[in-house]
Amino acid sequence: MSERPLDVLEASVGEEVTVRLKDGEEYGGHLTGYDQHMNLVLEDAEGEDTTIIRGDNVVSIIP
Amino acid sequence: MSERPLDVLEASVGEEVTVRLKDGEEYGGHLTGYDQHMNLVLEDAEGEDTTIIRGDNVVSIIP
Amino acid sequence: MSERPLDVLEASVGEEVTVRLKDGEEYGGHLTGYDQHMNLVLEDAEGEDTTIIRGDNVVSIIP
Amino acid sequence: MSERPLDVLEASVGEEVTVRLKDGEEYGGHLTGYDQHMNLVLEDAEGEDTTIIRGDNVVSIIP
Amino acid sequence: MSERPLDVLEASVGEEVTVRLKDGEEYGGHLTGYDQHMNLVLEDAEGEDTTIIRGDNVVSIIP
Amino acid sequence: MSERPLDVLEASVGEEVTVRLKDGEEYGGHLTGYDQHMNLVLEDAEGEDTTIIRGDNVVSIIP
Amino acid sequence: MSERPLDVLEASVGEEVTVRLKDGEEYGGHLTGYDQHMNLVLEDAEGEDTTIIRGDNVVSIIP
Repeated sequence: MSERPLDVLEASVGEEVTVRLKDGEEYGGHLTGYDQHMNLVLEDAEGEDTTIIRGDNVVSIIP
Repeated sequence: MSERPLDVLEASVGEEVTVRLKDGEEYGGHLTGYDQHMNLVLEDAEGEDTTIIRGDNVVSIIP
Repeated sequence: MSERPLDVLEASVGEEVTVRLKDGEEYGGHLTGYDQHMNLVLEDAEGEDTTIIRGDNVVSIIP
Repeated sequence: MSERPLDVLEASVGEEVTVRLKDGEEYGGHLTGYDQHMNLVLEDAEGEDTTIIRGDNVVSIIP
Repeated sequence: MSERPLDVLEASVGEEVTVRLKDGEEYGGHLTGYDQHMNLVLEDAEGEDTTIIRGDNVVSIIP
Repeated sequence: MSERPLDVLEASVGEEVTVRLKDGEEYGGHLTGYDQHMNLVLEDAEGEDTTIIRGDNVVSIIP
Repeated sequence: MSERPLDVLEASVGEEVTVRLKDGEEYGGHLTGYDQHMNLVLEDAEGEDTTIIRGDNVVSIIP
């Protein structure tokens, strides 16, 4: 019954997530994409502003 | 009789673990998932709050 | 309906992007190229000045 | 007559080791497991407390 | 019409480039060589002094 | 007549070496083992105390 | 007419080089060996003192 971390990410697509980065910054937004490196795509609520985050900066993702 | 570290992680799924990160932070929670990079999925006791941790931040995991 | 981060980059070619680097610097310009490491090519509005950024420096890209 | 470092680790399974990490911390315990990344499993003398250490934090291991 | 970053480097061989490194240093010179890691070979105008730069130090290259 | 660095290490097995690490520490001892990552095994003169050093900490090795 | 950085290193074997490292140190010596990671072997003029440098420490090599 173990979950794979990337499956949890997949299940979080379309949902609000909080991403903490190694430089201490936090990003909030709707997760609209990811890949196996944990590169992420976040969008704001209106779907207007998009941010691509390079995965090697990520500390944690809270769906 | 040597154990593989990932087998010890596998045996810890569903159990309470303490995770120490390179930035000095500690996370506690039930381990619900992991992969070969030591990416981790932690949940709180109620199974409500989930945290995905990117494995390259991990120093140690205490089951 | 999940987007791959590199597909979002592909869709941003020719558009103005803001790139934040690990050293705190920000670059703005038209994205004219990229590869799978997130190495980037940026040009200014006149297409005269070109900058190649090595991908491992990138924190985030805002199209 | 050259020894492979991982063979020396293998020969140390079940023995007391001291592990020095990049953050300056030291761990002591019985080595009960390892893998090719130098991920380690340490246990205390009573076999009650287990610690998994991610290999990229390791500076040195003294069997 | 997307350019690959390494193709832009290839097109810059023989030209003056400015290379910014992670330690803050800047190198100027004629680019006479490179490889897929962005290891670079720079020469001064007279072709007398050569510098090999290991690619993982590179932040940006301005042709 | 170029030497491969790992061949020089191989030729140094059984000899006294000085190893400088990224954290500024220096280790001296007889080199009794190594692998392709420059993971090293050092022993003291009496062959009693053994130290395994993870290769990614190594700056230089002086045979 | 582009040169590969490793070919420039190959052409420098037997010659005096200056190597700058990420920790700010500089090494001078005759280059007697290298490999694809830019691991280097330097010797002094008399061929008595040898230093192996792990390639990931290298910033630049000036032949």
